[in-house]
Amino acid sequence: MSPQPSPGARIGGLGHYRPETVLSTEKVAARLGVDPEWIISRTGIRERRVAAPGETVADMAVAAAKDALAGVAATELGIDTVIVATSTAESTIPSTATVVGARLGLDRPAAFDVSVACAGFCCALGVADSLVRVGTSKGVMVIGADKATAWVDPHDRDTAILFGDGAGAAVVLPHGERAIGPVLWGSAGAQAGLIGIDPGTRVLRQDGRAVFRWATGLTPLARQVCDRADVPPDKLAAFVPHQANLRIITALARGLGIDDRRLATDVVDTGNTIAATVPIALSRFDDSGAFSDGDRVLLFGFGAGLAYAGQVVTIHSR
Amino acid sequence: MSPQPSPGARIGGLGHYRPETVLSTEKVAARLGVDPEWIISRTGIRERRVAAPGETVADMAVAAAKDALAGVAATELGIDTVIVATSTAESTIPSTATVVGARLGLDRPAAFDVSVACAGFCCALGVADSLVRVGTSKGVMVIGADKATAWVDPHDRDTAILFGDGAGAAVVLPHGERAIGPVLWGSAGAQAGLIGIDPGTRVLRQDGRAVFRWATGLTPLARQVCDRADVPPDKLAAFVPHQANLRIITALARGLGIDDRRLATDVVDTGNTIAATVPIALSRFDDSGAFSDGDRVLLFGFGAGLAYAGQVVTIHSR
Repeated sequence: MSPQPSPGARIGGLGHYRPETVLSTEKVAARLGVDPEWIISRTGIRERRVAAPGETVADMAVAAAKDALAGVAATELGIDTVIVATSTAESTIPSTATVVGARLGLDRPAAFDVSVACAGFCCALGVADSLVRVGTSKGVMVIGADKATAWVDPHDRDTAILFGDGAGAAVVLPHGERAIGPVLWGSAGAQAGLIGIDPGTRVLRQDGRAVFRWATGLTPLARQVCDRADVPPDKLAAFVPHQANLRIITALARGLGIDDRRLATDVVDTGNTIAATVPIALSRFDDSGAFSDGDRVLLFGFGAGLAYAGQVVTIHSR
Repeated sequence: MSPQPSPGARIGGLGHYRPETVLSTEKVAARLGVDPEWIISRTGIRERRVAAPGETVADMAVAAAKDALAGVAATELGIDTVIVATSTAESTIPSTATVVGARLGLDRPAAFDVSVACAGFCCALGVADSLVRVGTSKGVMVIGADKATAWVDPHDRDTAILFGDGAGAAVVLPHGERAIGPVLWGSAGAQAGLIGIDPGTRVLRQDGRAVFRWATGLTPLARQVCDRADVPPDKLAAFVPHQANLRIITALARGLGIDDRRLATDVVDTGNTIAATVPIALSRFDDSGAFSDGDRVLLFGFGAGLAYAGQVVTIHSR
C-alpha cells in the first residue's frame, strides 16, 4: 500500500554515536607545536572523538540509528526510507544509505545519501519532512554521519584543531501537526572555494577567517527560520546550530538573543563532525533531560558550499 | 513568499551534455587486447564520450542544465532548488550542486547532491517531485552528472568497456496534474559489495555477472512503477531505463513487452554514464522528435547499492 499524505511530521526518536577514542586538545596542541590554550580560545574545543581505524561512516551511522530506534525494529515504526547526510564516506559507490538500510534490517528501503557538508543533516531532515507530508515515505531514518578526521591533515592548524568523527540520527514519522517546521535552505556557491576537500591531495582545507566572517553573519537567516515556524527566538527552548566552533555559535546565539543555557555547545567535547553535529548535539541535549514535551528547538546547519539549512522542531515524547 | 503546494509536478525542460571526445569501442578493444566485436556483443556499446582532462562534473552539470533552460533564465522559471545526482565528483566538499547553482545565476538556491549511483537521477527526480508538490520548492533543477572514466581502470575488462562521461538535466515545475508519477524506489544493501569504488585504490569494480543477473530480474519492479502510475506498459510511448548495457535493457524491455522502437538505447553511442544515463537518453529521445504531448514514458534507474528508482512521466511541450 502506498503511504498517505500527512498534515505534518515529527521526530519520533533521536540517537547519536561518538567513537570511543578521545583526542584531547592537549594532544592536538603537542602535535602542532602550539599552546592548548591557543586552541581553546580560538575554538572552545577541549576534545574530539576519533573513529577507530577500520570504523566506517556506515558503522557510525548504524550505531546512531540504532540508538534512535531504542530497541524498536525500524520496520515496526514504518520506516521505509533511509537518508544519510555525509560528505566523507570511504567511497561514494555504493551509497552509505543502502548499506545502512540493510544493516537496520529494513526490507528494500528507499536509500540515498545527501551531500551538502555541514548543512547536510538539516537539509536531509527538510527532505524527509517533505517526503512524509506529501505521502512519498511512511517514515524516514535521517542520519548525519561523517568521519572528518580521515580527510584532515593532522598538521594543518586551520583544520586539525576543529574536526572529529561521529553520527547522529532522527526518526521522522507522520504527525497531525507540523512538528518539523518549514525548512529554510540556501547556498552561496560563488564562495564554494572557501572550504573544500582538495581533489588532488584529498585533504580538507578551509579559509578559516573568511568562513568565520560568513558564518557569524548568518543571524538574520537563523531568525528567518524562526519566522517561518512562527516562533520568536525568545520562545525557543534551545538553539542547536552546526557545531562549527564555540566562537561562531556563541556569536550566532547572541545575535538571536539566546542565552548560554539554551545554546547547544556540544562542540566542546565532540568537535566539529560536519553533518553529524546537529543530530549529535540535539540527541545529547535530549538525553540530558533538558527538553519538555512541546519544546521548540531551532536547528541550523551551515558550512561548505557555502550552504545553510534550518528548521524549528517541536519535541515530542515517544 | 513561501512556495505553495501543487497538485502535481511536470518536467518543464530537458537537456543534456555529452563531452566532445569520442572513445570508440575499437580503441578500447585495442587497449584491452580484445576483439571489438566481443565488446559489442557483450555490451552493445560502440562509443562513449570522455570529459576533457580539466572538465569537472560541475562543468558538465552546468552545460546540461543550460541546455534544459534553452535560453530562459533559471530564476525566470522560478527555480529555487538545485539537486545534482552524482557519485563521481572530483570532491565531495563542497557539494557540486552549490557550485552549479551559482553558475546558473540563481540567488541563494537550496542546493544539495544526491548520491545513489545509477539510480541517482530518478531518485532525485522523485525528491524534486515531492518538494514541489508539498510546496517546499517552487521549481527544481534536477541534474544527473557523472565522470565515470575518472574512476575506471582502463585496463579492467569488466568496466573499461562500459563507462563514459556526461550529464542530463530536467526542470521540475508545479503542475495541475501529476505529470511526474509516483516514484518507486528501494535498495538491496546486502548486495552492496557487487559494485563499488574501492576506497583504497579509488577504482570502480563490479561483479559483472552478478549485477547482470540482478538487473535482468528487475522487470517486476519496472512493471510496479507502471502500476503506481496506472499506465500499462503497452500504453507507454517509451521506456528509458538506466543505460547499463544493451543486453540488460533489452532484457528488461522484452519482459515488459516493450518493442525496440520504444526503448531508449542511448548506451550504444554514449556508454554507461551512471546517474546521467536516464536524463541524457530522455533528452535525446525528446530532441529526436519522437514524443507527442501527453506521451507517457517510463524512467527506471538501477545499479550500485544495489538500488533502484523509477517513475512514469508525462511529456508536455513547454
